[in-house]
Amino acid sequence: MRNIYVTNTPLQQAKEEWRKALADCGFFNSAPSELIKVDDSLGRLTAEPVVADNSSPSYNAAAMDGIAVHFGDLSGASEASPVILSEDQYQTVNTGNALPDQADAVVMIEDVHTLENGSVELIAPVTPWQHVRTIGEDIVATELILPENHRIRPIDQGALLATGVTEIKVKCAPKALVIPTGTELIQPGETAKPGQIIEFNTRILAGYLNDWGAVAQGSSPIADNPALLQEAIQAAAQTNDLVVINAGASAGTKDFTASVLADIGKVIVHGVAIKPGKPVILALVDNTPVIGLPGYPISAVLTMRIFVKEMINEFLGVETVPAETIEATMSRPIHSSMGVDQFVRVTLGHVGKNLMCTPSGKGAGAVMSMVRADGILTIPSGSEGVGAGEKVSVELLRGVNEIESTLVMIGSHDNIIDLLANQLHKNRPSIRISSAHVGSMGGIMAILRGEAHLAGSHLLDEETGEYNIPFIKRLLKNVSLKLINLCYREQGFIVLPGNPKNISTFKDIAKSGASFINRQGGAGTRLLTDKVLRDEGVDPEEITGYGHEEYTHMAIAAAVSSGSVDTGMGIRAAALALDLEFIPVAEERYDLIIPEEFYSDEKIVNLLKLITTDEHFHKTIVELGGYDLRDCGKVIYEQ
Amino acid sequence: MRNIYVTNTPLQQAKEEWRKALADCGFFNSAPSELIKVDDSLGRLTAEPVVADNSSPSYNAAAMDGIAVHFGDLSGASEASPVILSEDQYQTVNTGNALPDQADAVVMIEDVHTLENGSVELIAPVTPWQHVRTIGEDIVATELILPENHRIRPIDQGALLATGVTEIKVKCAPKALVIPTGTELIQPGETAKPGQIIEFNTRILAGYLNDWGAVAQGSSPIADNPALLQEAIQAAAQTNDLVVINAGASAGTKDFTASVLADIGKVIVHGVAIKPGKPVILALVDNTPVIGLPGYPISAVLTMRIFVKEMINEFLGVETVPAETIEATMSRPIHSSMGVDQFVRVTLGHVGKNLMCTPSGKGAGAVMSMVRADGILTIPSGSEGVGAGEKVSVELLRGVNEIESTLVMIGSHDNIIDLLANQLHKNRPSIRISSAHVGSMGGIMAILRGEAHLAGSHLLDEETGEYNIPFIKRLLKNVSLKLINLCYREQGFIVLPGNPKNISTFKDIAKSGASFINRQGGAGTRLLTDKVLRDEGVDPEEITGYGHEEYTHMAIAAAVSSGSVDTGMGIRAAALALDLEFIPVAEERYDLIIPEEFYSDEKIVNLLKLITTDEHFHKTIVELGGYDLRDCGKVIYEQ
Repeated sequence: MRNIYVTNTPLQQAKEEWRKALADCGFFNSAPSELIKVDDSLGRLTAEPVVADNSSPSYNAAAMDGIAVHFGDLSGASEASPVILSEDQYQTVNTGNALPDQADAVVMIEDVHTLENGSVELIAPVTPWQHVRTIGEDIVATELILPENHRIRPIDQGALLATGVTEIKVKCAPKALVIPTGTELIQPGETAKPGQIIEFNTRILAGYLNDWGAVAQGSSPIADNPALLQEAIQAAAQTNDLVVINAGASAGTKDFTASVLADIGKVIVHGVAIKPGKPVILALVDNTPVIGLPGYPISAVLTMRIFVKEMINEFLGVETVPAETIEATMSRPIHSSMGVDQFVRVTLGHVGKNLMCTPSGKGAGAVMSMVRADGILTIPSGSEGVGAGEKVSVELLRGVNEIESTLVMIGSHDNIIDLLANQLHKNRPSIRISSAHVGSMGGIMAILRGEAHLAGSHLLDEETGEYNIPFIKRLLKNVSLKLINLCYREQGFIVLPGNPKNISTFKDIAKSGASFINRQGGAGTRLLTDKVLRDEGVDPEEITGYGHEEYTHMAIAAAVSSGSVDTGMGIRAAALALDLEFIPVAEERYDLIIPEEFYSDEKIVNLLKLITTDEHFHKTIVELGGYDLRDCGKVIYEQ
Repeated sequence: MRNIYVTNTPLQQAKEEWRKALADCGFFNSAPSELIKVDDSLGRLTAEPVVADNSSPSYNAAAMDGIAVHFGDLSGASEASPVILSEDQYQTVNTGNALPDQADAVVMIEDVHTLENGSVELIAPVTPWQHVRTIGEDIVATELILPENHRIRPIDQGALLATGVTEIKVKCAPKALVIPTGTELIQPGETAKPGQIIEFNTRILAGYLNDWGAVAQGSSPIADNPALLQEAIQAAAQTNDLVVINAGASAGTKDFTASVLADIGKVIVHGVAIKPGKPVILALVDNTPVIGLPGYPISAVLTMRIFVKEMINEFLGVETVPAETIEATMSRPIHSSMGVDQFVRVTLGHVGKNLMCTPSGKGAGAVMSMVRADGILTIPSGSEGVGAGEKVSVELLRGVNEIESTLVMIGSHDNIIDLLANQLHKNRPSIRISSAHVGSMGGIMAILRGEAHLAGSHLLDEETGEYNIPFIKRLLKNVSLKLINLCYREQGFIVLPGNPKNISTFKDIAKSGASFINRQGGAGTRLLTDKVLRDEGVDPEEITGYGHEEYTHMAIAAAVSSGSVDTGMGIRAAALALDLEFIPVAEERYDLIIPEEFYSDEKIVNLLKLITTDEHFHKTIVELGGYDLRDCGKVIYEQ
């Protein structure tokens, strides 16, 4: 094995070295052009200035319905002394008709009085070329229609065709190939065995390359074999303007990309001080740019965005439009290392006066975190992070409009929330729900800090046996709000079908040594777990895995389903969703906390209308199993 | 002929009646869906919520390169009492590998000390699931990936494929047909005889329909014949979701669209109080929306935008994102009629502190005015117009960025300006020139009002024989500026090849009775014309057509070329461009006036660099003919 040394090149320096290498190898001068029909040119870039072949209009044309006349014939016409024109002195014209040879003005039809013999009587003079579109009025032959490097719109096609231009030279987009590497890769649709990975990165990367103006394709996966990889890269460099390799950029035992590129080409940079994306490789093979991306999808996309998006624009000769950004307020601190540019996926929500920014990512492998993200926050290398309440500038992944109309729900997780989000968005496409699953207590704190429009909560007060209200009175005493019931739901042990470990109490778990998976502190389900443990007189220390925490009911169910653990506490809907068995322990109340300031917010109004009146929605929830909607929409408490 | 009555329905009322008719006929509930491969789904809209088929990751996976261990084996490990694991107690894993059955944590390779016998020594304990991506960490099977009505991005495709979804239901775009009507229409590429019109509107209209989310096609032109039109509309309504007819909406002798629609369907509105676009027809045929648009391209596009764009979105169930607008200051007044919503094409330019807004349109037939427009200004029906200096909100047709980097040139027209604009845009894609041809005096006034970055001028002062400087001293005395030469150029009579009327002086013109075409007042060429007339002692009254004014050299050349007039005064380049003959009269100096406040503006710096140093640019100008660049770039005067 060749020893690969991954450097920590500062981002700005890496970009400059990369740009210089591309300029030196002629990448920015290589955009070819092709002659195509104007009919097929929508969205393409002109490769040269385009001038008019003919003038438009190409003849003097009537600009009104009326009669074409010679202006000299009407001089002196007035009500007192009308002028009569015989049939051979005028011609009836519709808008767009060519003027006859001697005519040089048009009289509107409304001003023409036709006599019985076909003559016309006119009572006002005209000016020369009145109501006439003169030849070349819009554009004269040889004048510039479109400059070079102009992206063709429908109106441009019209102007080209109007002036006789039917074919134009347009630039060809750079051709790109994405090469996935890894023996463990299987194709979408195949069933993954443990250790196998569905190869989806290529679709993501090729999709973005196409979005950015390239014509990108993906190749079949190349196994982890340096000889095969070398062959694939050399072939790709011959027929493409740009090659992207995913992955093998790092220094693991099967990471051959860097050594292969060093053998057959020139590595400009290997290792950049960014997070995620550090092991990226920027190289040239036969003067073709080759980029080795990290394997995790989020790292790959963010890194490609930094090193490829602008170079495609420069290849085509178009300006890179700066990404749309928005100023937001951090809802919680993020730490970052000095010397590293960090890119953080965030969600944004306009709650009250503030646009709040919250980190959404759990790891570079989490594709859904990017699906759900509203923007990317860059923490520059000179900073150690940003604090809660600090103002930050976020690069948007969605339109401002979409962000402004997002209902921010933070708190306990329930499977109904997905249904609610979908149905609300379907009824009112402008409304979107962004939900963060941080547990009931996290939701109450978000309401206190003004970060959420509403919170889902099912916190049981042991002393009173009452749900939510005691916590609200204690923690939200200064907030005017309503507590509105969403549902009652069953909580219990989620186990494999047939309940192989015969679990129905915590005592059973402790006795059998079965492994448990817990919810995080502050979750309503955690409070319930701890209460049931105390009621049963079982010490948490007796429960294997009590310290192993997950954040949602579905994560608990997934762990049980995979066999990683024997059981965990969760709602019936989560067990049913994954065909697991459910041992009921308690019914609990799940409420929505809504501050008064949002009662009249259109998004809240629509949400409440949906949960109180939509029968289809109710029916769908009942079908999930484990829910009772007897109080759905009822105001439980108000302060 | 049926008598067609075109109403003057207020815009808001017309929109409401149209929307209600579409809702009543089920148009908004009719979007069909189709099952397609995720690979082909980029940019499509989900027709139903999409949930994960499998969890992702689908197994517990190493999140680091290292060794997989059972966390219990390392309890109590420390530097003082290291733990030794034998080869069967751990397994080497790369990032992404599946954890072996008993393993529940990963130790990073950097923290592993491998002994000679293959055992490893570890000096720290681990927490359960450390450096492990647990099953379902990203998403659990059955959880929502994408809601209904979501437009699919590359990252969404990745999330779908990662969770085993390979096919999804997406909405089908509405099918639209554009039917051009008119016996006078010929196809692009054919040579237009007088009275014939190249049929280009269909490409523009279908292009915008596709941009807005429809799948639009154009049909062959239908002659002006009610029976043929009726047959075409009825056939189109059977197989399309939407039919657009262009034109015949008005009440001319060949305008059959309204009467045909009344015969075979229901006309909802015919005639709306908008300008342009008044005669638009909104109708239903067999419950299919049919829109009759006016014939002029600008009227057709603007009207279709009002009545079709939103309905396509509502058909698909997506929100109509409000058009991007910007606040600007009117550079001159626009009058409008009370009771009519007027839509005005405007150009925008950031000069000094103000974003100036200037009407650009010459008429609804002028396609180039829309090609050049930066935005659309709406003057609502309750207003009589806007005054100079008033703030207005303009709907953008280009990105803000493009507008901000536009160099605004107002003043005299020269063919070099096109070349300059093209070359500057090519060298620096971010820079664009917007040039308005209003004559030299108009340019000086624009500089005075702070509306232009620079002005082109060739004003001859009769008393001193000096160009430009006397006018600057008189009219711009308080403005610090430089006067920089662009070129010397020949002015003269433009005549048909062979000079059939033997014109070489104004005396010749007066004597022969040849027809002349003049430039507008305030144009440098008009001053020259008047001076030469006085020098020759010819009275303007003796010149036929002295009162017929055009605004550019090319318009003069076009009029001569078409035979409309015998001659006019213009520059040699204009004559040569249209293969006409040129009779020289004078050499004149053409200068650029640049106020001091823009000397360091990046756009001006680039322009001056181009005209002073670019040899290719100089060569191209000399090839145009009639130019002398002996002082090009030289500062002629400074104050």
